[in-house]
Formats: sequence, C-alpha cells, structure tokens
Amino acid sequence: MKKVSYDNLVQFHRAILSKVGLDDQSLQSVTTGLCETSLRGVDSHGVRLLPHYVRSAQSGRKNPTPNYRYTQTFPAVGHLDADNAFGHAAGMKAIDHCIEMAESFGLGAVGVSNSSHSGAMASFALKAARQGYMAFAFTHADALQRSHGGKRAYFGTNPVCFAAPREEKEPFCLDMATSMISWNKLLLYRSNNEMLPEALAADKDGHPTKDPQKAVCLLPAGSYKGFGLAAMVDILCGVFTGMVFGRDIPAMFKAPMGQPRCLGQFYMVMRTDGCIDKADFLRNMQQMTEEVRQEPAQEGQRVMLAGDPQEHEARKRMQEGIPLDDTSVKSFEELSKQFQVPLHWL
Amino acid sequence: MKKVSYDNLVQFHRAILSKVGLDDQSLQSVTTGLCETSLRGVDSHGVRLLPHYVRSAQSGRKNPTPNYRYTQTFPAVGHLDADNAFGHAAGMKAIDHCIEMAESFGLGAVGVSNSSHSGAMASFALKAARQGYMAFAFTHADALQRSHGGKRAYFGTNPVCFAAPREEKEPFCLDMATSMISWNKLLLYRSNNEMLPEALAADKDGHPTKDPQKAVCLLPAGSYKGFGLAAMVDILCGVFTGMVFGRDIPAMFKAPMGQPRCLGQFYMVMRTDGCIDKADFLRNMQQMTEEVRQEPAQEGQRVMLAGDPQEHEARKRMQEGIPLDDTSVKSFEELSKQFQVPLHWL
Repeated sequence: MKKVSYDNLVQFHRAILSKVGLDDQSLQSVTTGLCETSLRGVDSHGVRLLPHYVRSAQSGRKNPTPNYRYTQTFPAVGHLDADNAFGHAAGMKAIDHCIEMAESFGLGAVGVSNSSHSGAMASFALKAARQGYMAFAFTHADALQRSHGGKRAYFGTNPVCFAAPREEKEPFCLDMATSMISWNKLLLYRSNNEMLPEALAADKDGHPTKDPQKAVCLLPAGSYKGFGLAAMVDILCGVFTGMVFGRDIPAMFKAPMGQPRCLGQFYMVMRTDGCIDKADFLRNMQQMTEEVRQEPAQEGQRVMLAGDPQEHEARKRMQEGIPLDDTSVKSFEELSKQFQVPLHWL
Repeated sequence: MKKVSYDNLVQFHRAILSKVGLDDQSLQSVTTGLCETSLRGVDSHGVRLLPHYVRSAQSGRKNPTPNYRYTQTFPAVGHLDADNAFGHAAGMKAIDHCIEMAESFGLGAVGVSNSSHSGAMASFALKAARQGYMAFAFTHADALQRSHGGKRAYFGTNPVCFAAPREEKEPFCLDMATSMISWNKLLLYRSNNEMLPEALAADKDGHPTKDPQKAVCLLPAGSYKGFGLAAMVDILCGVFTGMVFGRDIPAMFKAPMGQPRCLGQFYMVMRTDGCIDKADFLRNMQQMTEEVRQEPAQEGQRVMLAGDPQEHEARKRMQEGIPLDDTSVKSFEELSKQFQVPLHWL
C-alpha cells in the first residue's frame, strides 16, 4: 500500500489519459470521475480502473475522441448517442444537457446509447446537485445479480443514484447497487480467502453461499425488491435507450477488449423550486440532514445519511492522501514507466 | 371470510363514498384505487381501508370536496395543492397533469402538497402506464422504518413505484415499501400470534426481533439501502413539496381523526419514445418480460417480474371473487346497514 495526494493523482490521470489519446472532454470527465470516487473512499469504482481504461482506449473498446450526436427529441427529453465514448465522458455530457433542460423546463432527462462503463454514478448526480439541482443517475451492467426465485443472474448490479442539494456544501447522495454487495467486494473476499459474513451471494445452482470461491452471482438487496429495482434500471438504460439488456450485456472483463459494450445510461435532473422557494428547500433538506444525524444510535454506531461516510472519507483523504492497494501501485508504476509520466507517492 | 365480485365491490364503494359526501372525482379515484388494489391481491392497501376512509370523510381529516389549486411552476413541473383531498383523488389528479406535460414536453413531474394516505402507489403509475407512458410514483409515511444503525424509526415505509408499458395488456409494475415488509404484514403476524420467519422488524431498543409483539418498527430493505431509498422518497414528497417529513409526519391511525395529515406525494411521467420508436420500446419491454419469465427457477419456484404475482391474482379474483377477512366483512355489513346500501356476497 502506498499513498498519493489528490492533486498528484489528478495530474497523473490527466497525463496518462492524454498519452493514450483522450480528447479534452473525455480526459477531464474520466479523471474527475475516477479520482473523486477514490477520494470518497469508493475504491472499487475509483482509480484502480485506470489500467483497464488505458487498455480500453488502446484496444478500441472505447472511443477516446467521440463524435457525440445529441437529439433533442422533446423539449425536456434528449437522446445522446455517445459514439462508444468512455462512460464517464458520456455521463458528464448527458448531465449537462439535463441541467440545461431543468433550468428552462423545470425537469430534463437524457437517455444515453452506445456508451461504456461509467464508474460510480455519484459522479454525475453530484455534479448537478452541487449546482443546486436534484438528480437521478442510472446505468445497467452485465448479469451478476441472481434473479428472485431463480438459479442464475439475468440483471446486473444495476445501481440507483439520487442526489439533492442542501445548505451545507456537499449534497445528499445515495449511490447503491441493487444487489446486496458489489461484485468487487465479493472479489476482495475471494482474494483474501475470507468467508462472507452472511449469505450475500449465490453458487452455480442459485443457492445462497458464504463461500466467495463458490459464489458466481450476488443476491438482490432486500429479496425481490432489489430484483425489481434492477429491472427498473434496465428498462431505463437498456430498453428505453435501444441498447441490449439482461443477459445480452457484454461482461466488463470477459468480453473481447476490441468490442464496444454498447451500454446505456439514464439521467434526470430537476429544479428544487417546483413547489417552494429554493431557500426553503435547502433549509428543509438541512433540517432533515441534521435530524437524522442526531437520531439515537445503536452502541458503537452512528446514524448517518446516505453519502455521509463518503464525505467523511473524502475530507480525511484530502488531508492524508489516497491509499492505493499493491496491485494498483504496481500497475501505476508500470504506466508511469511506459508513458514516461512521473508519479509522486506521499 | 366471504367473497364479493369485483363489480359489486365497486358499486358498494361508490354508493358508500357518495353517502359520506365525496365529490365525483374523489369518489371515482378512491373506488378505483381501493377496489383495484384488492383485485390485485394487495389486501393491506385495498378495501379493508374503506371504514377508515369513511371515518376520515366524516371527521374532517380528509376533504370530500377539495378545491384543488394547481400551479404550472415550470413547463414540465407543477405543484398541486390538494386542499386535504383523499390521497387517491390527489394522486389521480396529479398523474393526469404529468401525462399532459409528458405528451408535450416528453416528461412531466408534479409535487402534491396537503394530501393524505394514497393507498397503493401502483394505482397511479399503472394509470399512466396503461396509456403508454413510463411513470414513477412516491409517497412518504409516518416513522416506522428503523434507521440504519439507529435505535428507532425516523423515516416511514416510504414506497417506490415504477411502471412501464409493454406489448401485453398489463404494464410492468414495481411497487415496494423500502422496509423489509409492510407494517400491515407485521400486524397480521401479531394478530395470528405467529413468530416472524426471520428478523424483519426491531424492538424498542432497535434490535432485530422475530417476535411481532415486541416489534415496534421495521428493518430497512437491504440494510442501509432501504434506509437511503426512504430518505430519497421523503426528500421528494416532504422536502420538495414543503410538507413535514421524518418523525413530524402524523401517524395514520394514532393521530386525531379531525386533523389533516398534510402528506406529500410525487409523480413523474415520461414518454417511451425519447430515444427509439414507441413500437420498438414496447417490443423490447415484451422481450425482457418473456426472457425473465423463462429464466431457470429454483425448485418449486418461478422467476417472475415485478407485478406478475399481482396480475395473476387479479385474473383469478376477477373470476372467483375477492375474499374479505372477517373484520372487513363485519365492518362492511355495518356500513351497509348504517347507510342502507345493499351488499351482495358471492
């Protein structure tokens, strides 16, 4: 494990992604998306993905210089054909269109087609919420969530994300997989040879298992509820956008690297002053935030709102640096050497 | 237990609600909402609520002849002040405004203030989806969901509902509490003196319990995920609409019956042809539906999409009649006598 400062991490990403040919908008979006996600402690969706993204640019899976085609289908709904852009780049583009529509019409939605893995959806929802809007962000993923009552996965871990501004600087932000845990968390248990604390995953017959070596898919969050939410996400991101869905979505690491994944994303942004003044909305949000944080807690615990743990971690890591696991340290040092980009550890 | 045909149930509701002074829109909305919900097998939110609703109209908690004030705040966002209408009536009004906006702008949302209990949110989302739109429907409820890490409830069972049309007649429809089970299900275990099959509820110290007599609140669905979704729902329904939220929401059965509950609701409706043709959307939806239903299942189970169990039950009950529990039979017979409205059992 080594640590790196946020600023150095950002500089390293910009330089590496520039060397593999990303245009300015792509480079900026991927850098912000990956680095901020690691800053917020969500390591599974952060900078550990950089080597994979470098390969994606080099292999042709992702287009480093996309030629976006945006169609304003209706005044408050648009379609962004992302030309196989990096998922982060497509998402940032889409959320900007949503903000523009929300400003004029109160509300705006964009369906994104022909994009790829977009990291943590919080990156996009937070962008809108920091500008004073409520935002929903969704993307679908390859089949890894066991169907309710089923033997195998049909839907992916299909995340649901919602953010809303308040008086304090950082917005409320819920960003959750609709499975009990993420696939990357399972891989961590697997590589550490540890048993899962409870049945969060299922084996090849669909039966719950605590053994991460036997697990081939994840259980839905809250039984049939996570399965239902995963379907909703695939309807918005796969069906609505005209992309593939369910078991037809190519797997992130198994599909050929030269093949675009043709993923969909879906965003919706709304003004906060649809019923009451913006100042009142922000004050109410702040009141809810403070009330929840003051709720009586279980011994040794604290009641926190969604996004609170990530915010705490971000403040800490901004001071103390961002820790990278040994695999990432090694691959970052290889990238540094290969592209002759200096990398400064703390 | 007695059974009644759907048509007779509808007629009985219309007659009783008319006797207690509901205007035509309120009467129609409450009748459809309650009867269709029972038809779909969701007895907790169906016709068993009729006696409570009758008391609500008589006591002044709900306004049987509301004077709605609708403000088109932005082209695609509106605010409906429901004048303490029945929740069903306010919701049906709001979803109609959303459909109108979606038709012109692609998308429309309405925040409802000063409404009351709205039954099953599927009633509203299905209304839009049966007309060919995707729809989201949310409402908040009084604090009954134990906070993640907390000793007691701050948020309610705050449901999330989403519906989408497909080629077959009935739309996809997810309608779920964000707690593991609904409060009414817990009450059923309590009155049957049965233990819960697993820890789905918590005692007065916030500890999980299988004993329904000791349970005072419900656990969130999927751990912190249900808790996060409940917060999202209260932001949309309480904060955004300017209503109360969290522990300030008056309880359904405990608050004085003469006091309006001032609940909020939130609806969003979207066209299906934002990225692809409507016919393609419907075909893709149908393909997903059929693929999921054909997924290999656990022994003795079937893989079903959200809404499938309710649809099967509706077909069955339309043929065989709708069963009413003994308490409802008794109170319906009392209503029949009190208001001199005939009631025909099967």
